[in-house]
Amino acid sequence: MKDVQSGPAEVAMPIDRVGVKNLRLPVLVRSRDNKGEVQHTVASVDLSVDLPARFKGTHMSRFIEALRAWSEELDYSSFKRLLEDVRLRLQAERAHLIFRFPYFLQRLAPETGTPALMDYQCTLLGELESGKLTFELGVDVPVMTVCPCSLAICNGGAHSQRAIVRIRTRSTGMVWIEDLIAIAEQAGSSPVYALLKREDERRVTEDAFAKPAFVEDVVRSAADELRRLEQVSWFRVEVESQESIHNHSAYAIIELDKNV
Amino acid sequence: MKDVQSGPAEVAMPIDRVGVKNLRLPVLVRSRDNKGEVQHTVASVDLSVDLPARFKGTHMSRFIEALRAWSEELDYSSFKRLLEDVRLRLQAERAHLIFRFPYFLQRLAPETGTPALMDYQCTLLGELESGKLTFELGVDVPVMTVCPCSLAICNGGAHSQRAIVRIRTRSTGMVWIEDLIAIAEQAGSSPVYALLKREDERRVTEDAFAKPAFVEDVVRSAADELRRLEQVSWFRVEVESQESIHNHSAYAIIELDKNV
Amino acid sequence: MKDVQSGPAEVAMPIDRVGVKNLRLPVLVRSRDNKGEVQHTVASVDLSVDLPARFKGTHMSRFIEALRAWSEELDYSSFKRLLEDVRLRLQAERAHLIFRFPYFLQRLAPETGTPALMDYQCTLLGELESGKLTFELGVDVPVMTVCPCSLAICNGGAHSQRAIVRIRTRSTGMVWIEDLIAIAEQAGSSPVYALLKREDERRVTEDAFAKPAFVEDVVRSAADELRRLEQVSWFRVEVESQESIHNHSAYAIIELDKNV
Amino acid sequence: MKDVQSGPAEVAMPIDRVGVKNLRLPVLVRSRDNKGEVQHTVASVDLSVDLPARFKGTHMSRFIEALRAWSEELDYSSFKRLLEDVRLRLQAERAHLIFRFPYFLQRLAPETGTPALMDYQCTLLGELESGKLTFELGVDVPVMTVCPCSLAICNGGAHSQRAIVRIRTRSTGMVWIEDLIAIAEQAGSSPVYALLKREDERRVTEDAFAKPAFVEDVVRSAADELRRLEQVSWFRVEVESQESIHNHSAYAIIELDKNV
Repeated sequence: MKDVQSGPAEVAMPIDRVGVKNLRLPVLVRSRDNKGEVQHTVASVDLSVDLPARFKGTHMSRFIEALRAWSEELDYSSFKRLLEDVRLRLQAERAHLIFRFPYFLQRLAPETGTPALMDYQCTLLGELESGKLTFELGVDVPVMTVCPCSLAICNGGAHSQRAIVRIRTRSTGMVWIEDLIAIAEQAGSSPVYALLKREDERRVTEDAFAKPAFVEDVVRSAADELRRLEQVSWFRVEVESQESIHNHSAYAIIELDKNV
Repeated sequence: MKDVQSGPAEVAMPIDRVGVKNLRLPVLVRSRDNKGEVQHTVASVDLSVDLPARFKGTHMSRFIEALRAWSEELDYSSFKRLLEDVRLRLQAERAHLIFRFPYFLQRLAPETGTPALMDYQCTLLGELESGKLTFELGVDVPVMTVCPCSLAICNGGAHSQRAIVRIRTRSTGMVWIEDLIAIAEQAGSSPVYALLKREDERRVTEDAFAKPAFVEDVVRSAADELRRLEQVSWFRVEVESQESIHNHSAYAIIELDKNV
Repeated sequence: MKDVQSGPAEVAMPIDRVGVKNLRLPVLVRSRDNKGEVQHTVASVDLSVDLPARFKGTHMSRFIEALRAWSEELDYSSFKRLLEDVRLRLQAERAHLIFRFPYFLQRLAPETGTPALMDYQCTLLGELESGKLTFELGVDVPVMTVCPCSLAICNGGAHSQRAIVRIRTRSTGMVWIEDLIAIAEQAGSSPVYALLKREDERRVTEDAFAKPAFVEDVVRSAADELRRLEQVSWFRVEVESQESIHNHSAYAIIELDKNV
Repeated sequence: MKDVQSGPAEVAMPIDRVGVKNLRLPVLVRSRDNKGEVQHTVASVDLSVDLPARFKGTHMSRFIEALRAWSEELDYSSFKRLLEDVRLRLQAERAHLIFRFPYFLQRLAPETGTPALMDYQCTLLGELESGKLTFELGVDVPVMTVCPCSLAICNGGAHSQRAIVRIRTRSTGMVWIEDLIAIAEQAGSSPVYALLKREDERRVTEDAFAKPAFVEDVVRSAADELRRLEQVSWFRVEVESQESIHNHSAYAIIELDKNV
């Protein structure tokens, strides 16, 4: 059967990235707290490689075969093995991989200690070239913010809202999702929870009003912590606050490359 | 050229609705306040008709021809003319039509009076059968809510958030988008605005804290107003509050058919 | 601590539904083929109850407590137990519940038999009132369609595209997700697959070109099968075809209530 | 009234970007073909500036005031004036601005010449620093692709689908949206249309089958044209094909910085 893909390209240009996008897949992720335990979740996956100028096309089915053959827990080293396998199967120089998935953590309500699951949207991105892995870990963490301006000028009360802290990091050593969540949560006026009894609601509200924060404060506080994390070589934090007094968001971004 | 669509169906079942979906179109909408004035916006449109059991297919290009031929301002009577034209072109019993579009209103900040545009997502839905038009008007209105429980139990402060009031109405007489927006806004703790100077922000916050409201309060207050609007024969209100202390929403729904 | 929620409502109207929306949760779902086996997936959940006219508010944290207490595999009877538990905890007349989740099935490529996972978006909706459960099962199934008109009039070739078959059923007896997927797939020109080697791609294409189908044909074929399924008392099928020659979709809907 | 924003920051870090996000706004855009004519559309807008380490916060209402004061047709020079005005109002070094909007063009069906509107999603992004404007224009163009592999190996037929060509360019001189659309459309197997009579459908299908193209072919062909456009200094093309035989997309990306 004719292999059209291996034929010559009409326009002889190398392609940076060619592959498959938005594949859904059940995955196992190892968590920090539950030593040895893993959690089941569902990921959306993009897989790609580079393509030299001389080939017309890549062989798309091999990406799916690589995913099938890889049936491991998702962690740093299994992620790297998958990238290496993709690179070899596709006879490419570079392999590129993104996993996006919700990650669940049991959180205790701050006053009653009632446990409940919270979900955090995570992103794992990796590129492997000449044996060198660039690894990016990201997590989106909802927090509560109380407006410092509103609190200072109002006669009782201040508007608050949900804000999303989006952290992306590149690292040389290990960074856990749990560490990034902790950094995001300490930066807001208060963490948010799935389950709060009335005593907890009072505690969260009072804690948040005692620590008002603009998006500017939140992004700086998170960036300050990430700056101190030795194994993080690059990071980007975006805070988006779903303003309760507006129909638009306020946002702030800090990006830092420690190698520059 | 063969007309496959007019051939016999393999399974002789009537089809409730067949047509095109998610067409984007610039449209003109007449507003209540600016007498005679119209506003330009962009709509996403679905158009469909019924299909008798005996025909294999409908003629999809005729829906687009009907839209092209119709180049009027969007209001009750032009909407009806479009439905009638679609029904005739497709030789159908029933025609069905949905327009979704953002609608803009100039709003004044409550203290300084500074004007700025707010956008509201609107839905116009119509079905024409045997000369009888069923007409549904909907609008999604963002408001601010302050939690009454949090306000009652906390020592200073209370959590607030953006909530969306989604109103859908069927009516015998005319209902304006502006009327539904007013009903939604009075039901929340405060309207939201695009532009607030500090004096306005204080006013909005203080007004909202003076009128705390659960989603239950908001949905009932809006439903109560809609119940009193004589020309409204059916309505549905959903309030969804993007809780600032949680990562999920609280919501409440009231639906009322006055003919039952 | 004050219980504001149990206080009197300002507007004494009953609320049809009040609760929480868009909670994410890991769940276990039992599959038909793998006897005794269950699969791990992630659901988005809405939970609500009715609220009598006399109460100001519901107690939102109890919904989350009900979900925590329920840690079973998702099936017809565990779903009913959760609804009953929610109704009791909230002291309500009616409880209402929606789970949305991706469901995975191993499918074999049609020629080489290579296995790979496909995902299908599912919806479970239930309402319990006076011991009576209304149960709705839904699944969205991607298929391929080849245009019969294009095939008839073109000199070689015909446009094809991905179409989504959305089935919703209410039933008295058991209906499996797998059964609805099979009904949707037989209705299109061909099923779609995650992994196809070249031999498989040829087979899929040739099979699809031998069975051209409009959205009208697909919706009727699926409706015809659902009409014959005895335990299905009501159904709705929508087929949306992402036309490859247009930037909009073609769609068709059939709804049938066997009790009418 | 206290100006909390102008107070000192707790963490003295400069912020790369702080502002407002997802504002909706009616805008006027000048088109190339209709000399002197402008079209009405609706944009979603992000506006931001940098913030020095010493200030606690920016003044968010000034972004909205700048948008209000700017009531011009959207083109290169009015865009630059808005950026300069934002920079001045916020007393910043850099201003950053994104407009996203649907843009409409009348297209003629290829055989009958029947006119109908097509919509293309556009992005205008600009950053102004020390009088220097970085300007990025983007457009997403739907096209049809016929699979060359399927066409070569099948006994009659080949699968086709809608693909989206996403072009982003930075330029020194003027680039029109219409030019980028033309580049994207010639790269696919065929353009897509809003309105096609049967004669047109035959023509589109036959044209497309005479010019089969992988995502790799489409991305290279578009990149080749952009490489030749002198005023384009940087570009990125992504082609995403909504495969009709799969439930995932195939994609390819080429990025080129001519200054490197």
